[in-house]
Amino acid sequence: MKLENWLFASAAAAPERLALIAGGERLTYSQLEHRAASAARRLAGLGAGRGKRVALVLEGSAEYVVLLHALTKLGAVAVPIDPRLAGGELDSRLELAEAALVIRAVEEVSDAAEREAPLEPRVDQDFPHCVIFTSGTGGSARPVELSYGNHVWSALGSAVRIGVDARDRWLCCLPLHHIGGLAIVLRSAIYGTAVVLERFEAGAIGSLIRSEGVTLISLVGTMLARLLDAGAELDRLRCALLGGGPVQQGLIERALASGVPIAPTYGLTEAASQVTTLAPGEAGRKPGSAGTPILPAEVRISDGAILVRGPNVAAGQIGPDGWLRTGDRGRVDADGHLYVIGRGDEMIVTGGENVSPEEIEQALSEHPAVTEAGVVGREDPEWGEAVVAAVVLKEGASASEPELREFCRERLATYKVPKRIGFVERLPRDAQGKLRRKEISLPRN
Amino acid sequence: MKLENWLFASAAAAPERLALIAGGERLTYSQLEHRAASAARRLAGLGAGRGKRVALVLEGSAEYVVLLHALTKLGAVAVPIDPRLAGGELDSRLELAEAALVIRAVEEVSDAAEREAPLEPRVDQDFPHCVIFTSGTGGSARPVELSYGNHVWSALGSAVRIGVDARDRWLCCLPLHHIGGLAIVLRSAIYGTAVVLERFEAGAIGSLIRSEGVTLISLVGTMLARLLDAGAELDRLRCALLGGGPVQQGLIERALASGVPIAPTYGLTEAASQVTTLAPGEAGRKPGSAGTPILPAEVRISDGAILVRGPNVAAGQIGPDGWLRTGDRGRVDADGHLYVIGRGDEMIVTGGENVSPEEIEQALSEHPAVTEAGVVGREDPEWGEAVVAAVVLKEGASASEPELREFCRERLATYKVPKRIGFVERLPRDAQGKLRRKEISLPRN
Repeated sequence: MKLENWLFASAAAAPERLALIAGGERLTYSQLEHRAASAARRLAGLGAGRGKRVALVLEGSAEYVVLLHALTKLGAVAVPIDPRLAGGELDSRLELAEAALVIRAVEEVSDAAEREAPLEPRVDQDFPHCVIFTSGTGGSARPVELSYGNHVWSALGSAVRIGVDARDRWLCCLPLHHIGGLAIVLRSAIYGTAVVLERFEAGAIGSLIRSEGVTLISLVGTMLARLLDAGAELDRLRCALLGGGPVQQGLIERALASGVPIAPTYGLTEAASQVTTLAPGEAGRKPGSAGTPILPAEVRISDGAILVRGPNVAAGQIGPDGWLRTGDRGRVDADGHLYVIGRGDEMIVTGGENVSPEEIEQALSEHPAVTEAGVVGREDPEWGEAVVAAVVLKEGASASEPELREFCRERLATYKVPKRIGFVERLPRDAQGKLRRKEISLPRN
Repeated sequence: MKLENWLFASAAAAPERLALIAGGERLTYSQLEHRAASAARRLAGLGAGRGKRVALVLEGSAEYVVLLHALTKLGAVAVPIDPRLAGGELDSRLELAEAALVIRAVEEVSDAAEREAPLEPRVDQDFPHCVIFTSGTGGSARPVELSYGNHVWSALGSAVRIGVDARDRWLCCLPLHHIGGLAIVLRSAIYGTAVVLERFEAGAIGSLIRSEGVTLISLVGTMLARLLDAGAELDRLRCALLGGGPVQQGLIERALASGVPIAPTYGLTEAASQVTTLAPGEAGRKPGSAGTPILPAEVRISDGAILVRGPNVAAGQIGPDGWLRTGDRGRVDADGHLYVIGRGDEMIVTGGENVSPEEIEQALSEHPAVTEAGVVGREDPEWGEAVVAAVVLKEGASASEPELREFCRERLATYKVPKRIGFVERLPRDAQGKLRRKEISLPRN
């Protein structure tokens, strides 16, 4: 199946609609289309072309979005890479991605001369669109190639679950080298709706939502917590997509109590973003659910592991049985709702029992003195792995280790109760706010 | 690709959302799912099953919608047939459709006993969903088989162009044996939004829009004119999809002046409804346009004829070159907007020139004394076909035949000017308000 260039199609359907607000610039679809076509000809002058991989090692900006669309017009494959990576790590990614051209500053393109190049009006749905490195909290980053069809199906499934409004403005404060951020830019272009691009800073985001009439936002748990702390009027949104791993239920309840239209979602790079999403308005009725599969994705649990199938899944990541093995663990209830238990590679095996760190973190965070908790396994001669926890206490609150262990004992099976609990000032998290359990270190008590 | 049963999926995602308002009944998705599963078991008791065609010769009702969904649960193929057809015509359609079971009254199903039957949780996108007879204004009706994938793609393309809101209520006042009506029921089930089913009666529709909070409506030109005449508050809607053939520009302007969010569309049974749709808000900027193709349909003009390609097109209707020949005529502008000139089979050939009746009707309707006009070709020894017109004058207005011919001469090429113009009280139209040009008869002046 052939797909029309999504930016061209949206510019044809509604040229005067707002497409992008970023760094003081406001572009309509007609303007964005024009800028992208010009940038495409400049990129062609730099050697970009059909099927060639072009690495974008850039901070988010209006021009970054222009370049992403420009590459689609050449049929070149975008490889967005985190610009904050250290030299060796960056080189290794560029090599893994087999990048033919590397853009490290937007001026490299804007200063280049235009060259006549055929701009692709349509593309086969199986044609590669981009290569994204999975942010994986543990292990090294892997490149995942996503096709145009992967993105379009993801966007359509999201449209049906979350809705689409011509006046939508989706605030993108996730990095563009992350599928969560990139997918906002792509699906907005597919819908013909606007992206508001801004770095995450809790105070600024709050006022941006009001001043720019933002209707949609994508967040991970930590961002949500910070925005609630900062008093951002998230209840003005029509939907706040909440992903990036299981979110502690207390936070969801706090958001619901503030009238935030939370839509928890389970997604991953290999599935071009969302796999399941809870419909806005359903979070109160289905605590802990990450929703049902978006059309036409399928989810199956095999031995506790989450498997995914559908046209949104990267072809290169599919197993011989047709399913993607996500490495995450979960369960599906009778209504088809997915409950994510945790990342498979962070499962703790203690005394032969599988223990999910999230479950214990959840229990600890229910204690009135606890803000958040991180749980890991530590090598132990007796248990294989021993469950240990790092806990952040609320300001001014106090709790002792024995008290918290007793609290866990009332709520968890004995083997799940942490053998040691240490108190820390903060938990290590990555740029997207995801807990980095591998980096948790406990103080000597 | 496999698709989950759309009703089941929407009931799982948001069971308490309203699904259907019809004949005094209000059903949530959970209730509709339950009713459809029960009806499926009763239909199984009557012999319906996977791949079997089941004719529904029924007036629109809540139970009709239940039966449509029940058939999807059995993998049976729905054949909705106009219940007002005369015996011979009905028999010929039942034979053409190869119906294994014919339902002529909803009680035949509700009175039947349930039988245990496997309810299909998912279906391949290529599996047949229904057989629809094209309403074709001329010639005899042809059966068109549409697949699940045809409907899903149509619904997704429509979602992106028109938007989707969880609170949407789509008023269906087109018959369910017509693709325009059926598609409302199907896409609403796919989105998990509500259908308000009601027979078209201009006065009643107006108050229903207000009392039920209708947000969307599908209309043909005549319905729109009647609703405007009746003072219906169409400006409360977020979109009024306007299809069923080219609509006279004066009517569109009248609607725009009243604040109606008109979205002209070009669609046909063979493409599972919309092919191109003008985004709401664009009608003022692009007069005469039927919009750009909805994702991922393609439109091409060959020798003035409209060709269509895409996953929404019925497989059985595709030519050897992969394109559907619609039989309609049009042009595409530089921005990719489609302008429909007329139905190919009603093109008049006069003195070797092709003349579109719509173009002449449009010119006549611009005369201040004219309400509407119907133009046809009449066998003529001199011209092959002679252009003749039937005109309805506005109440109290008057105009002579020579005056109107002179009016046309100022606006049209000489060979397009009607050789004869007759005055009539009304024009023959079908149930959907489409002009039946074959039935136009001119009075002897």
